[in-house]
Amino acid sequence: MINTGIVGATGYTGSELLRLLVQHPQVQVTVVTSQSEKGKPVTELFPGLRGHTDLSFTDHQTPALAKCDVVFFATPNGTAMHHAGNLLKAGVKVIDLSADFRLQDAKRWSQWYGMSHAAEELLEQAVYGLPEMNRKMIISANLVANPGCYPTAVILALLPLLEKRCIDTQDLIANATSGTSGGGRKAAVNMLFAETGESFKAYNVPGHRHLPEITQALNISSADKVSLTFVPHLAPMVRGIHATVYAKLIRDVDFQGLYEQRYKKEPFVDVMPAGSHPETRTVRGTNVCRIAVHKRDESKQLVVLSVIDNLVKGAAGQAVQNMNLMCGVEETTGLDVPALSP
Amino acid sequence: MINTGIVGATGYTGSELLRLLVQHPQVQVTVVTSQSEKGKPVTELFPGLRGHTDLSFTDHQTPALAKCDVVFFATPNGTAMHHAGNLLKAGVKVIDLSADFRLQDAKRWSQWYGMSHAAEELLEQAVYGLPEMNRKMIISANLVANPGCYPTAVILALLPLLEKRCIDTQDLIANATSGTSGGGRKAAVNMLFAETGESFKAYNVPGHRHLPEITQALNISSADKVSLTFVPHLAPMVRGIHATVYAKLIRDVDFQGLYEQRYKKEPFVDVMPAGSHPETRTVRGTNVCRIAVHKRDESKQLVVLSVIDNLVKGAAGQAVQNMNLMCGVEETTGLDVPALSP
Amino acid sequence: MINTGIVGATGYTGSELLRLLVQHPQVQVTVVTSQSEKGKPVTELFPGLRGHTDLSFTDHQTPALAKCDVVFFATPNGTAMHHAGNLLKAGVKVIDLSADFRLQDAKRWSQWYGMSHAAEELLEQAVYGLPEMNRKMIISANLVANPGCYPTAVILALLPLLEKRCIDTQDLIANATSGTSGGGRKAAVNMLFAETGESFKAYNVPGHRHLPEITQALNISSADKVSLTFVPHLAPMVRGIHATVYAKLIRDVDFQGLYEQRYKKEPFVDVMPAGSHPETRTVRGTNVCRIAVHKRDESKQLVVLSVIDNLVKGAAGQAVQNMNLMCGVEETTGLDVPALSP
Amino acid sequence: MINTGIVGATGYTGSELLRLLVQHPQVQVTVVTSQSEKGKPVTELFPGLRGHTDLSFTDHQTPALAKCDVVFFATPNGTAMHHAGNLLKAGVKVIDLSADFRLQDAKRWSQWYGMSHAAEELLEQAVYGLPEMNRKMIISANLVANPGCYPTAVILALLPLLEKRCIDTQDLIANATSGTSGGGRKAAVNMLFAETGESFKAYNVPGHRHLPEITQALNISSADKVSLTFVPHLAPMVRGIHATVYAKLIRDVDFQGLYEQRYKKEPFVDVMPAGSHPETRTVRGTNVCRIAVHKRDESKQLVVLSVIDNLVKGAAGQAVQNMNLMCGVEETTGLDVPALSP
Repeated sequence: MINTGIVGATGYTGSELLRLLVQHPQVQVTVVTSQSEKGKPVTELFPGLRGHTDLSFTDHQTPALAKCDVVFFATPNGTAMHHAGNLLKAGVKVIDLSADFRLQDAKRWSQWYGMSHAAEELLEQAVYGLPEMNRKMIISANLVANPGCYPTAVILALLPLLEKRCIDTQDLIANATSGTSGGGRKAAVNMLFAETGESFKAYNVPGHRHLPEITQALNISSADKVSLTFVPHLAPMVRGIHATVYAKLIRDVDFQGLYEQRYKKEPFVDVMPAGSHPETRTVRGTNVCRIAVHKRDESKQLVVLSVIDNLVKGAAGQAVQNMNLMCGVEETTGLDVPALSP
Repeated sequence: MINTGIVGATGYTGSELLRLLVQHPQVQVTVVTSQSEKGKPVTELFPGLRGHTDLSFTDHQTPALAKCDVVFFATPNGTAMHHAGNLLKAGVKVIDLSADFRLQDAKRWSQWYGMSHAAEELLEQAVYGLPEMNRKMIISANLVANPGCYPTAVILALLPLLEKRCIDTQDLIANATSGTSGGGRKAAVNMLFAETGESFKAYNVPGHRHLPEITQALNISSADKVSLTFVPHLAPMVRGIHATVYAKLIRDVDFQGLYEQRYKKEPFVDVMPAGSHPETRTVRGTNVCRIAVHKRDESKQLVVLSVIDNLVKGAAGQAVQNMNLMCGVEETTGLDVPALSP
Repeated sequence: MINTGIVGATGYTGSELLRLLVQHPQVQVTVVTSQSEKGKPVTELFPGLRGHTDLSFTDHQTPALAKCDVVFFATPNGTAMHHAGNLLKAGVKVIDLSADFRLQDAKRWSQWYGMSHAAEELLEQAVYGLPEMNRKMIISANLVANPGCYPTAVILALLPLLEKRCIDTQDLIANATSGTSGGGRKAAVNMLFAETGESFKAYNVPGHRHLPEITQALNISSADKVSLTFVPHLAPMVRGIHATVYAKLIRDVDFQGLYEQRYKKEPFVDVMPAGSHPETRTVRGTNVCRIAVHKRDESKQLVVLSVIDNLVKGAAGQAVQNMNLMCGVEETTGLDVPALSP
Repeated sequence: MINTGIVGATGYTGSELLRLLVQHPQVQVTVVTSQSEKGKPVTELFPGLRGHTDLSFTDHQTPALAKCDVVFFATPNGTAMHHAGNLLKAGVKVIDLSADFRLQDAKRWSQWYGMSHAAEELLEQAVYGLPEMNRKMIISANLVANPGCYPTAVILALLPLLEKRCIDTQDLIANATSGTSGGGRKAAVNMLFAETGESFKAYNVPGHRHLPEITQALNISSADKVSLTFVPHLAPMVRGIHATVYAKLIRDVDFQGLYEQRYKKEPFVDVMPAGSHPETRTVRGTNVCRIAVHKRDESKQLVVLSVIDNLVKGAAGQAVQNMNLMCGVEETTGLDVPALSP
């Protein structure tokens, strides 16, 4: 059994992680922490877990974390970087679901996240936890930076094209839409039902923190430098990310075959039949990314559609996938379920 | 032109009031106040009003209020009672959309609202602003307590039966459901889209502040003392209240005729044909309460269905209706629009 | 392995059943039928099942059904009654998720369902599949009538009170609300998103087919004849049923203790702590019914709140629970998951 | 008073037209037709109009249409082209809200709409009813082709850039999202709440009928031939269209000033302050298109955000705007209301 702890388990990624881990046949969750709710039973906040856990929230400072095999950070940005070092020294594997270790460049991180980085020395060993890109490195990693939700959907949509060097890398557009759970479980007027229901909008058009993360990953897979326009939107739903990615072909390619080939061994990427339009509900509650690729006859423009559940493949599920890899467990363990749809 | 001001115009009832008043042909809004947003143009918070107002929020203490003909309070409970007295002395008519003047009994008010009442001396002159019940008193009132949203829907559903003395008043049940805008425009985790979307729940079953307000109004219209069980629910939608009211007949009555007769002169109560099921969307954006009455053959149980838009007939629209009455303007002015549906 | 078939697997209960069965460790689904979609792969209709089944829809007349251990009918009312007899003769256990075998009285069934019953002779052996009421009979049954969604939520809310004989059985009210998936996966204007979104309504107030089903079950558990007013409502969400049940105490009772005691051994009924308000999202995707009981100090009125997922405990999950019981498998197998929430 | 009729008033555009016309101070609606609902009072289908119209649906063949000043067609594609000619001969002005007269090229129309055109001879006189582009022609037109919803949002977003010749016209992308009312009021499984709620998808990526319509209009305003990639999406809401349009600058331009200048006299186009993110709810129920323009420092990529209410500026409201122009009435009459928000 893998002994695990979750730091900051009162948000949506934390509680989703708990939902997945209590079902995982080879995992025991021994500690969940929360500064604001310490002492309270987990099920008081999350009655949907009643019958599946008896844990109560404890303080972040609990020594129980250092006894875990794996500790997940589901904390706001800027917390994990203060604690990861000590845990790593104690021999604990760390998976950070926040953004603290996602950018290799500490200066760039500071610019986007508005604070200086407290653990620059760890950045080198931090592995970006997208298994479809970095599986080998993840297997031997002790510190994994779990990807953001938008980056997961967008990178998986573009990877085959970049690796194949068949698109103009100066001309990429990722138009993405998220459900409101992406905004986190925190008091905020702009995320009230009465503010977001029956409405649709773009946000952060001048710049979103996921842009440098996506660009960093794409540049690793691309021969030429990548230039991407990324526009996130908010839809009146709880879960789901839908990315519509536009890329121009610079030479002919059997793109359907390309995608099927690239992902045929990937347990969590589903290349749909030609002509498909994936819906976010078809991945609800699952760790799957479904992708469809379109090209109009008269055009060089490819349109790649990619959907994930932002809380699963976009956060907690991918973290479990990474844990499985890091701990030598079959990669799909605890994650192999069909979508809850409708 | 009626010169009006709104105190506390950053919430949903305040902004809805503004939406209605800028369309009202005999009204000029000259001042809107907000402590948190003073100095900011109204349309920065509410872009849906762009092109319809140039006002900016000012401080609550502005002397401009005393120069208005009518001042509306759309403030949280406990604010209007501190300011109404001075405005009344200055000859201003006051319509309070909060709960400060709704209960005649200051002690009871304190128990339900958790603070002592700061203007007990005004309670006697405060008129409960339900025109279908108190039209005459409203016409001559200087201080109107605008009813709550649930009370409006429930009282209108029961009034004809109580006045006719044909139901068991010991046995009333009001099962009501509200959209999330009823929770107000304030930061709160439990009203996030991700908390309320795709879910349904009852709340405040042990006791809701609208219960004493409903009971007070029903007792005025009833020969026998009324005992009511009131259970509010929250539905995943922005606007709308639906009340399902259960009452037992103690004698035979043509209930369809009774309702049609009682409300035939009421411009904002629509008794639907026998067998109807009113939907909240059929009153969206309107000041109308639609009512349908059902009885099963084998039963003495009446089921009265009543729908309103919680922000219009349940708040801002009713306030405008009261203002029209208080100012000698045709009652339906500025309110006579069909529903926005779908 | 239990060899199973599903007749009529293109609706929401059929596809939900498939979702549960493909995860069930002791079940093999060998045949799924559909008249309208025969020949088509299941995953073409339900892409959320991609990777979990290779089945295609076949004709209802397929001989494969007779070779199953268990056949589920997820067909519209009026179909199962024509086919169940032959399957039973062939030694197949039948679980009918439609209403064909729910009422013991064929005449009453005809009145409510508008057709004569084609298999009256099977009604006697049909067991009403609510395990919390009829577990022993289900274990030895060959034909199970799986309960309706509303009946499941309402009966479980009332059972402890009726068995304890502590309420006035003449005075019961069940005010229930369903998500739109309860309307089925069939083309209908009134169930469009544009008709049901951002709106709330009661429907079928004069009479709903689930009323006689509920009454029949309650009368079995009650010493005195039960009279129930049942009003269903439609909320703008996909899944979930919330029942608010009103019952008057005729003598004092520790109702919280009563419910906890009655259901303490039930794996799928969760009596929540006193003062709770269960939300439908806390049972999403699960077979659990969560119940909370409230009484106001000054009142004899009990308010029982009960939530289920209409497609799981209200349909497919309960069917699997019944199958487990009928086949000697641990009752919770394949059903023991936490809620997908948010 | 303008005497008007609506052919096909049972859909969403027809009923929305009725909602607007019954409020229009200079219009009388004298006839509304429906083949399926003839004889039925309008308010039986649309209870939200109770108190605002006494009309019943009549047959399409009614002679009353020829006596109208203006007849609106809110029929499915392929109907108006059979009837417009006779009405025009009778001196009736015709505004067609369907697609029958939107494409100037009958052959192209046939390809996209799957039928041959029955009134090619009328195409020349048909004016594309986008007032911001064709106001003068509309004023003197007898036959107006009311634009589609997506085209309205996309064309208004691109017009200033094309007219200014400052973007690469080979490289345009319109990523648009619609609420479900765009799918029409007709029985269809894929538009059920249970199919579209809590989900998001792209559709018709290989080709949508609005593409040739948009391209035709853009080419008129552009010096160089336009090549556009248009991808529509479906969001879980009733009303609203949001277009995110990507265009590459080929020379420097003060784009904020450009938009403000271009639209400063337009009563229904609102260029928002720099940095804004328009939300669809800020135009709900209004005829306004709100636009915001963004450019990132390091990029030549412009991102234009454009929102409309698909049933108002995207259909019925624009039709009324056209009617006002054609009949010499002040253009904003009956349309000058703030948004219903939240």
